[in-house]
Amino acid sequence: MAEQVSGQTTDAFHRGDFWLVQPKGTGHRAGIDAMMLAAALPSDFSGKLADFGAGAGAAGLAAASRCKGATVTLVESAPEMAQFARLTLDHPGNAQFAGRATLVEADVALAGRAREKAGLADGSFDYVVMNPPFNAARDRPSPDALKQQAHVMADGLFEAWIRSAAAVVRPRGGLAIIARPVSLGQILAAMAGRFGAAEILPIHARADKPAIRIVVRARRAARGALSLMPPLILHDGPGDTFSARAGAINNGKLSLFGD
Amino acid sequence: MAEQVSGQTTDAFHRGDFWLVQPKGTGHRAGIDAMMLAAALPSDFSGKLADFGAGAGAAGLAAASRCKGATVTLVESAPEMAQFARLTLDHPGNAQFAGRATLVEADVALAGRAREKAGLADGSFDYVVMNPPFNAARDRPSPDALKQQAHVMADGLFEAWIRSAAAVVRPRGGLAIIARPVSLGQILAAMAGRFGAAEILPIHARADKPAIRIVVRARRAARGALSLMPPLILHDGPGDTFSARAGAINNGKLSLFGD
Repeated sequence: MAEQVSGQTTDAFHRGDFWLVQPKGTGHRAGIDAMMLAAALPSDFSGKLADFGAGAGAAGLAAASRCKGATVTLVESAPEMAQFARLTLDHPGNAQFAGRATLVEADVALAGRAREKAGLADGSFDYVVMNPPFNAARDRPSPDALKQQAHVMADGLFEAWIRSAAAVVRPRGGLAIIARPVSLGQILAAMAGRFGAAEILPIHARADKPAIRIVVRARRAARGALSLMPPLILHDGPGDTFSARAGAINNGKLSLFGD
Repeated sequence: MAEQVSGQTTDAFHRGDFWLVQPKGTGHRAGIDAMMLAAALPSDFSGKLADFGAGAGAAGLAAASRCKGATVTLVESAPEMAQFARLTLDHPGNAQFAGRATLVEADVALAGRAREKAGLADGSFDYVVMNPPFNAARDRPSPDALKQQAHVMADGLFEAWIRSAAAVVRPRGGLAIIARPVSLGQILAAMAGRFGAAEILPIHARADKPAIRIVVRARRAARGALSLMPPLILHDGPGDTFSARAGAINNGKLSLFGD
């Protein structure tokens, strides 16, 4: 399903419902993580959605593809990835999103006035989804897990991104994050006092192995207790074929949390 | 399997392998939580185990029953529960634990000299298990989840108990906690910088419902990354019968983490 141009590929998602123009071979190529993140939105979601660290726009467009009432702002700071997001938005296969998807070139970690000037006004979104860039190296586990942890902790990345999400989302607005399980403590710490009614959904490649990802969903200023949801199992057969549920979620036919 | 005496019951666990003398009707009656907690120990564990907040001794004796090389110190501060722990240790059905199980009447939250004087010397244990008393109200969910959270946060209970566990356990020694999912953030925050290589195992009553408990296991001063393990499902049939795996764990025939 990929049309290849020198230095870039154009890949179909949601069985051809939308297309992504992405760097070829290297960089932040979108895949299942972005689809799982977009699937965290309830199917009846409508309103303004911000995709933090959007890359070429995978999660944002997947959300717009499934939720027809969603208006999406892709937020990306890396100039090369922002350029791919522009090519994605201009792609004729994405004409259905005209007027429903725009790009803001800005660093998600901006604060106060700088964030507002960049186009991310306080309380102006109904939902924020984020796939922080740390996950880019996702399929090459580091031999030194502590080094990874230290790296993320030094960055304060989750704190900065979740602080920004808390600022731009309206009260009772939503947040969804996809991350590695190792980041769970930092995510919960950064959400404390900002987001409540958190739901953690583990994603396992196989039912008998530890989770490879978590999707955490929560609501701004909500008071509900944290829930740990039944996991999603990606593969339940002998090969690498998706389970029926994972396939439907990956193709935009089903939400991750069943709502 | 219960012999009733006025004001107390004597109940068999692990299919009659050991007995607990407990208050009748009220108070901290032991059940599946204590069995799941004890099951967090690897089957080949041997060494000194502290059971923090031991109550009548359920988790500690369940560990000693499955791990024949374990020497158990029950730590309980409430005088009435400590008295039940004494009756439990004196019960003829627990004669097999003579010389392997003792009681320390002390508040787990003690620090420094006071903790040492109470009989909990720094670095003197190989493993600590804890079932914090907050869980006592476990089968009666509060209508106000925030009130529960606030209560626990005001207590700083996990911080105090995990700080004590970090003091009394040797380097690379183990910690296992059973708690409600709502406490996950506090547990991870209290473990940060003290315990590593954490493994979180969710326990669900039914496969399609949110987890009712988490068991968190970790090692003192270890550097491994956090893992989110496949869940345990308690009931997989039409009634309230345990699943085969849950039944085996409840009866001391299988460890919770498969080791």
